[in-house]
Amino acid sequence: MKKISILGVTGSIGTQTLDVIRYNSDKFSVEAISAGRNIEMLRQIITEFKPKLVSVMDERDATSLKGEFTDVTFTYGNDGLVDVATYDADILVTAILGSVGLVPTLRAIEKGRKIALANKETLVAAGDIVMNHAKQYGAEIIPVDSEHSAIFQCLNGEKLSQVRQLIITASGGSFRDLTREELKHVTKKDALNHPNWSMGQKITIDSATMMNKGLEVIEAHHLFNIPIDKIKTLIHRESIIHSMVEFTDNSIIAQLGNSDMRTAIQYAMTYPDRIYKDNPLDINTLSTLNFEPMDFKRFKMIQLAYDALKVGGTMPAVMNAANEYAVNRFLNDEITFLEIEDIVESRMAHHEVVQNPDLETILHYDKLYKSDWRV
Amino acid sequence: MKKISILGVTGSIGTQTLDVIRYNSDKFSVEAISAGRNIEMLRQIITEFKPKLVSVMDERDATSLKGEFTDVTFTYGNDGLVDVATYDADILVTAILGSVGLVPTLRAIEKGRKIALANKETLVAAGDIVMNHAKQYGAEIIPVDSEHSAIFQCLNGEKLSQVRQLIITASGGSFRDLTREELKHVTKKDALNHPNWSMGQKITIDSATMMNKGLEVIEAHHLFNIPIDKIKTLIHRESIIHSMVEFTDNSIIAQLGNSDMRTAIQYAMTYPDRIYKDNPLDINTLSTLNFEPMDFKRFKMIQLAYDALKVGGTMPAVMNAANEYAVNRFLNDEITFLEIEDIVESRMAHHEVVQNPDLETILHYDKLYKSDWRV
Repeated sequence: MKKISILGVTGSIGTQTLDVIRYNSDKFSVEAISAGRNIEMLRQIITEFKPKLVSVMDERDATSLKGEFTDVTFTYGNDGLVDVATYDADILVTAILGSVGLVPTLRAIEKGRKIALANKETLVAAGDIVMNHAKQYGAEIIPVDSEHSAIFQCLNGEKLSQVRQLIITASGGSFRDLTREELKHVTKKDALNHPNWSMGQKITIDSATMMNKGLEVIEAHHLFNIPIDKIKTLIHRESIIHSMVEFTDNSIIAQLGNSDMRTAIQYAMTYPDRIYKDNPLDINTLSTLNFEPMDFKRFKMIQLAYDALKVGGTMPAVMNAANEYAVNRFLNDEITFLEIEDIVESRMAHHEVVQNPDLETILHYDKLYKSDWRV
Repeated sequence: MKKISILGVTGSIGTQTLDVIRYNSDKFSVEAISAGRNIEMLRQIITEFKPKLVSVMDERDATSLKGEFTDVTFTYGNDGLVDVATYDADILVTAILGSVGLVPTLRAIEKGRKIALANKETLVAAGDIVMNHAKQYGAEIIPVDSEHSAIFQCLNGEKLSQVRQLIITASGGSFRDLTREELKHVTKKDALNHPNWSMGQKITIDSATMMNKGLEVIEAHHLFNIPIDKIKTLIHRESIIHSMVEFTDNSIIAQLGNSDMRTAIQYAMTYPDRIYKDNPLDINTLSTLNFEPMDFKRFKMIQLAYDALKVGGTMPAVMNAANEYAVNRFLNDEITFLEIEDIVESRMAHHEVVQNPDLETILHYDKLYKSDWRV
């Protein structure tokens, strides 16, 4: 029986983690969980999975839930996230959205927790700090993103020194068939209609802008300790090949499957083992897989991400913060789709990079470039 | 410096093994080699690679070569093959064609040699004996066939018990776009024109009949100890994905690359490491990969191979022998393309299977069903 804690239990990755646990209730138990303001769903989760510790965003919700579930401990706010992250468990699934996951993840690392990492902003904003921390405390980080899970699986039993390049595939998102001219007129509803994957709103928008792939390139750099010039991206409409690793001897190893995040979540929870999962890809229905080179002019955001990582220091954190801010405004119908790019680009251009930043510096710029301050 | 011996040095796999050694002369030396009757090529190989022991088919050739190369030991015939196989080397590449490779391979196993196995008939005819022998003597067998090399790589770091199925890809061979009616009129020249791979004549014909894929299914069964009902085949015209392994958790791991046998040969010689090789697949040129379910009516030979393995005992050896016989007659312009199938089918139908055969029984039936005796 593995004890699982989950940061961000009511989100897309959180609920899919619960699916995996539900189908394998003989193998996993839920220990500590955090949610934001979706208290109705949280109630159902507490009733079904009986966690011992629950954290919510607001103190008021914590107080009211205490009355309903008397044998559960409730906590709240940023400290509550740390409580969940450091609770005694075998695996912490960090399914929380955005840079708010950073500090709790560091605290969990200090406890030597095995971390199933779905919160990509953590590594984008503070990859060096997080990975050095993990090394120092001997904490294992297993990626949950389908692309990084694929690369992690392709590297299984292989030597990093024999990697020629990582090849991260990209579906192209909701607008892959539109020109930049056509992008001027797209709506939020269009953007949220991802062709292959069922994911949260933020990541679906990030897929449409291709920032998601940029974040993944930066995440891959930190997770696998591979230099940026050895990380390539490739458009692959069908999302069947989740990513690939090319080795120095010309062999390419790829991981394939359905567009089902639960496969990657489950793998992070069972690694180095694999356990049964239903509903496989029917190999006899495979017909055509298509590939196109990445178009850095059409998808400007991925170029910005490569640029940010090359500049280094605080720049990836700033890019990430600016993107969180811009996507949020787009989701609030305050800006157009292409203005997301404009905001990220202008905030990056404005930023004077700080090299080798400490955590406080990163958190400072994260907050600044996420705020409603105008450049 | 790894010491390499090669059975069948003048053939397609043999010369490509020499290519690998030529480009990595700081890593590999040639120790003992065997050739058949291509003495002219053998002379060049001896001059370039300076092996210590050389075996040829005929005594007369051995005698005449002795005069030319005074510091090389020459030997000949079936005993000569065993001399090469058991010569002190780190790796024996069994690139010899047909069931004649069986006894030398067993002798090499008894010496605990690491074997880079390209001679698929060895496992098809006597897979149980060979694999039990390898287990008993602790000899490692690394496949050289691109499909089996792919599967071997996909299984790296994984547990066999967590394999759902092996998926062996098939280009479809020279006649993949022809109906059975159209196959009546094909010529030897057509059959030898493989769309993707540069290989020897026998294997190119086996690709056109799909017997090659049948032999590979049987080989995979023995190499990886996977039951026949967990070994699937899939038509994949481009031969970019060389094969795949599906695990119980729905993850599929695939190995991809150019159609260059030297990648698999080199891997077998460097495993568990990988070394640099030039001329990789340019990932940006990838456009479309196509897949179709295997058609067991159109490609009757693969059905015969599954049937033979299900029957077991001497049947796979008989099928293999009948196929060697029939392909040889086709290459001698004595029969038509579709008569290859007829001969294999009728010889299999005629055979009364012997279960748990010993080596002598297998060699007896191998000789019988390869001979010009008529059913």
